Amino acid sequence: MCGIFAYLNYNVHRERRYILEVLFNGLRRLEYRGYDSSGICIDSSDLASVPVDQSIIHSKSFRPLVFRQEGNIEKLVKSVYEEVAATDLNLEELFPIHAGIAHTRWATHGEPAPRNSHPQSSGPGNEFLVIHNGIVTNYEVLKETLVRHGFTFESETDTEVIPKLAKFVFDKANEVGGDESVTFSQVVIEVMRHLEGAYALIFKSRHYPNELIACKRGSPLILGVRVSYELNEQSNSEPLYDPKFLPNNDDPKELFFSSDANAVVEHTKKVLVIEDGEVVHIKDGGVTILRFDHGKDKHSGSLTRPASVQRALSVLDMEVEQINKGNYEHYMQKEIHEQPESLRTTMRGRLIRGGSCKAKSVLLGGLKDHLKTIRRSRRIVFIGCGTSYNAALAVRPILEELSGVPVTMEVASDLLDRQGPIYREDTAVFVSQSGETADTLHALHYARENGALCVGITNTVGSAISRNTHCGVHINAGCEIGVASTKAYTSQIAVMAMLALAIGGDTISNQARREAIIDGLVDLPNKVREVLKLDEEIKDLAKLLMAEQSLLVFGRGYNYATALEGALKVKEVALMHSEGIIAGEMKHGPLALVDENLPIVVIATHDACFRHFGIPDSKQQSVIQQLHARKGRLIVMCSKGEASLVCPGGSCRAIEVPQVEDCLQPVVNIVPLQLLAYHLTVLRGYNVDQPRNLAKSVTTQ
Amino acid sequence: MCGIFAYLNYNVHRERRYILEVLFNGLRRLEYRGYDSSGICIDSSDLASVPVDQSIIHSKSFRPLVFRQEGNIEKLVKSVYEEVAATDLNLEELFPIHAGIAHTRWATHGEPAPRNSHPQSSGPGNEFLVIHNGIVTNYEVLKETLVRHGFTFESETDTEVIPKLAKFVFDKANEVGGDESVTFSQVVIEVMRHLEGAYALIFKSRHYPNELIACKRGSPLILGVRVSYELNEQSNSEPLYDPKFLPNNDDPKELFFSSDANAVVEHTKKVLVIEDGEVVHIKDGGVTILRFDHGKDKHSGSLTRPASVQRALSVLDMEVEQINKGNYEHYMQKEIHEQPESLRTTMRGRLIRGGSCKAKSVLLGGLKDHLKTIRRSRRIVFIGCGTSYNAALAVRPILEELSGVPVTMEVASDLLDRQGPIYREDTAVFVSQSGETADTLHALHYARENGALCVGITNTVGSAISRNTHCGVHINAGCEIGVASTKAYTSQIAVMAMLALAIGGDTISNQARREAIIDGLVDLPNKVREVLKLDEEIKDLAKLLMAEQSLLVFGRGYNYATALEGALKVKEVALMHSEGIIAGEMKHGPLALVDENLPIVVIATHDACFRHFGIPDSKQQSVIQQLHARKGRLIVMCSKGEASLVCPGGSCRAIEVPQVEDCLQPVVNIVPLQLLAYHLTVLRGYNVDQPRNLAKSVTTQ
Repeated sequence: MCGIFAYLNYNVHRERRYILEVLFNGLRRLEYRGYDSSGICIDSSDLASVPVDQSIIHSKSFRPLVFRQEGNIEKLVKSVYEEVAATDLNLEELFPIHAGIAHTRWATHGEPAPRNSHPQSSGPGNEFLVIHNGIVTNYEVLKETLVRHGFTFESETDTEVIPKLAKFVFDKANEVGGDESVTFSQVVIEVMRHLEGAYALIFKSRHYPNELIACKRGSPLILGVRVSYELNEQSNSEPLYDPKFLPNNDDPKELFFSSDANAVVEHTKKVLVIEDGEVVHIKDGGVTILRFDHGKDKHSGSLTRPASVQRALSVLDMEVEQINKGNYEHYMQKEIHEQPESLRTTMRGRLIRGGSCKAKSVLLGGLKDHLKTIRRSRRIVFIGCGTSYNAALAVRPILEELSGVPVTMEVASDLLDRQGPIYREDTAVFVSQSGETADTLHALHYARENGALCVGITNTVGSAISRNTHCGVHINAGCEIGVASTKAYTSQIAVMAMLALAIGGDTISNQARREAIIDGLVDLPNKVREVLKLDEEIKDLAKLLMAEQSLLVFGRGYNYATALEGALKVKEVALMHSEGIIAGEMKHGPLALVDENLPIVVIATHDACFRHFGIPDSKQQSVIQQLHARKGRLIVMCSKGEASLVCPGGSCRAIEVPQVEDCLQPVVNIVPLQLLAYHLTVLRGYNVDQPRNLAKSVTTQ
Repeated sequence: MCGIFAYLNYNVHRERRYILEVLFNGLRRLEYRGYDSSGICIDSSDLASVPVDQSIIHSKSFRPLVFRQEGNIEKLVKSVYEEVAATDLNLEELFPIHAGIAHTRWATHGEPAPRNSHPQSSGPGNEFLVIHNGIVTNYEVLKETLVRHGFTFESETDTEVIPKLAKFVFDKANEVGGDESVTFSQVVIEVMRHLEGAYALIFKSRHYPNELIACKRGSPLILGVRVSYELNEQSNSEPLYDPKFLPNNDDPKELFFSSDANAVVEHTKKVLVIEDGEVVHIKDGGVTILRFDHGKDKHSGSLTRPASVQRALSVLDMEVEQINKGNYEHYMQKEIHEQPESLRTTMRGRLIRGGSCKAKSVLLGGLKDHLKTIRRSRRIVFIGCGTSYNAALAVRPILEELSGVPVTMEVASDLLDRQGPIYREDTAVFVSQSGETADTLHALHYARENGALCVGITNTVGSAISRNTHCGVHINAGCEIGVASTKAYTSQIAVMAMLALAIGGDTISNQARREAIIDGLVDLPNKVREVLKLDEEIKDLAKLLMAEQSLLVFGRGYNYATALEGALKVKEVALMHSEGIIAGEMKHGPLALVDENLPIVVIATHDACFRHFGIPDSKQQSVIQQLHARKGRLIVMCSKGEASLVCPGGSCRAIEVPQVEDCLQPVVNIVPLQLLAYHLTVLRGYNVDQPRNLAKSVTTQ
């Protein structure tokens, strides 16, 4: 949520138009993180004709030009070009050095409006400008103080205190030390000292032209580096320094700050993942990293200068194609349809099916040293939010079956609210597509403090959760751009099913079951390809349902999670009040809602779970009977060939899906519901990839 | 769900009108168990003028008269009196002996309609008639067999196989043994041998006039006994036998079968709680109990006669006034308003607040021998359905805080679906108002088999859960008739808070907290009385909301449960699609639904939970901010005096409630939502005490 992006070109001459487009494209790549409003800041050009070396000296007379607009990025783009035309701003003008910042907002404090958009400013003259992802929790206190010191606030954001505090610190330092004896990083570190909450910040100031400072705590931020030899790939010029480290010389270079890798990968694959407490200062072609330790020297009173640290760059393992829509109209559609491929990638190299003499097994490299400990746990605690929670819930039964270890489900925020007991004997498994989900990340810190073994299941190498867990598995589903998670969900289930197999161990009593699951996993991409053929049929169903206000989804056992996740998808993108309900609870209240009008999806695929337990009649069949008795308007999802069984005499609509090993059925069953949510959204005229009020990877609590 | 009732007068002369009214009143008392349709069976009177002794001999020529009607009891009553008038049936006719049966139905198999109502019949001539509560799970197989043997079915019920099977068994026995060498109980036991599923059954047959047989497995059933000396209280006649045991002589007596005590208490307080597998046969003034062991002699082929067992009667601890509406219009309304009293009764004698030198403590007699074991548990597992689950969820945080033992929440049906791991080291706590909830009861059997210590929290002394747990606490909330549970919910929370105090033990570090909770409990009835004064204000709110389609309720921490329970109440009775959502999950999807129109209740009472954990800003405040940013239509429940804090500038509607100790706040906070559900229902014109499609105490899976 909230995307921040900055672009600094150093000794690389760029036209203003180019700079604008880099900023806009950056925002387009980050738009899924928020699309309530957006804004950019570039420099004016009073001294544009002055030669390079002199321009540096005089550039403080540059005025920052701020553009902010409600709505999505294209609205901003349009308004910027209109204003450019109106003010005769020269788009061809060349900048040898320039620092631009850009922000796309997911509104938390203050409604979507230009005044609440970023950059937020220190006041008239824009001495300090800040873009922010996160929430400053003590902003009310800071605001009161600043108001007492004469500052006037114009937004309802929590962010506005930050640039104003920067100006306050800057002015105060200069009262004492004379004009500009204080450095930009000293100002920022002093500001950070007063902030509580979570943030990733980028500062720009007319007092420090062509410099940028970024810092973070809690929210994610990376730095992308493109140096001279990459800029001229034809030339054979060798780099003059070790390309693994940050540049610190006059060589031409381009630098990018971004909330995530999507906005950087088209420029460079060399990145630095910025750590909590680091302050990254770009100045005169060099990058310096300082460590800020919150809490230390809190009351020192004077401005300090922490020592700089050395950090190596890493290389992104992704391609630009991954983040394009290809032939699809929407990211969500693309990601639904690429699930056969994403599942295959997820399982690649992890399923071992040797010859007839060699047992089938699972290999999860990142876990193998910890399996013994996990097996001996008192509990396995699954922790996640939203779709990731649902994926864990889908895997809970098979993990319990294979391991015999009780599995507790925890919504991350609820665990924190309750401060529920977590002990050394527990294994805590953290599930998050982005690996940056704030609630899950906080729960991870909490569980670590309490001594639990922490396992991460994420889709993002180098994410906070990957880095802070003791071990884990990457789901390798490829970039997921659609705000409504689809392929990450199915890959999470596949990975956690493999986790269950790995934890379950190689007991002989489980061997047949284990091999059936492994065979099922191998065949899963084909089954998902098969179920995707229902696309047109589901589109027809969506046409029938598009005008409805409410939808219920009933599931149980392995498919309790499917009911929750299917309803969540419809809720998120189609903006229909859909609710997933565990079928066994139907009689305890929800049945009151059932009548001839309310559409109800019942998941009743053929499922060993309902035959195992000595009950000859299927419990879900009985649920369907009871709903028929209430004249419910049913849509029953059933196994291939069973439509006439669940809907005798065509009494309801059936969706037939291929049958797979029971514990893997949720992977198949969610697909028609993803398609339903997608088509409902398109038919209802809503924005599929930018669902109202939401944003991907929720990095605030 | 489904209420069954029977009345047999023996050597007590009763007019037909009286018999009818006893049956109707019985059904009225049981109506909350189901009100889709109802039916009764009484005898015709071909030989009504024959003297008593002769009538017995000839009574087989009595024809059973069956009346069945769709809709609630009063519809049945009306239709019966209409038919009586149309057929000139003599209402004054006296019966020295008569066996009548009556049933009120909650439809599971087959829509509500006369043909699907009970009594179900063996066919033309009504040779065998059956009323049934429960579900026969193997009815399809039985039906096929019976159809092959020439039976014609007229209903879609599972029940119809039972009387037809009885006729089949009876006819077959008589082919071999000649007319009526087979007894009624032999027939019934042979029928039971073939039934799978859960049931309480009463059989009536024209082959066995003036006899009744009741049997049960899973579903509840009691026998009420009113003997001669009670019938003539003025006379000083002493009973000729031990009144603690079942009568077995010619003395005048009245006998009642009923699904629960409510329909019996106005006639007698002497009852026998029938156990699973018992067959109760009333014949010639005597009551015989036979034990039927399902599984034994399954394939014996011949009709057997098990030995009879001796059972003592028990005495009901309830008064008729408890089950009347008093001055209220609806049971639900009465039960909401009597919560100060029901809470007081719940806590009576259980809170000890000695002098200044004596520590405050909690005394739960039924638990004290097991507290040590519970404290040493690996986990405490709360198991329940619907409202009872929510009550447990409300107590989870404080139980975890005081005991340090991890608490796992299990929806009973889900635990069974998953066959989740339960071990000897677990303590399983079963919560059910009726103590008969089928899912919870099955989960109890499952947990016992797996060796867990089982604790029961019920409102019904002698209920199946009370009898089958190792220990437990009765909530003593008094009879709850409203289908939507209200006072049982608050009393369940109070009892489980005391449970938390008892398990938590008397550590010094917790002493202040513990005493604050005890003081809070003592004062709770007053606080609930205070919050009930909001009645008119909530009614006004209900007027604003009555036309809405959807409602969201957000809560977190202690009040996550309040959100779920408040939404469940609105869903159950007001038939509005309301959904309770944990506030921390808002950003992970549900926020998409928020706009200017959808009403949202946010529970944001002042709560130490949000200050404890080093986060200076309240998380729930932040939720409100975010909802404001989305222009959400908020109704905020807050602590007294904080309305201006949560709704600055009157930006939303506030409900101020008294503040209590944080962990007890759910008891106070649910009351306005109960009132809201109640008023919405009345305003929307729905039946408060008979919500559509539902029934109290769900005794089928």
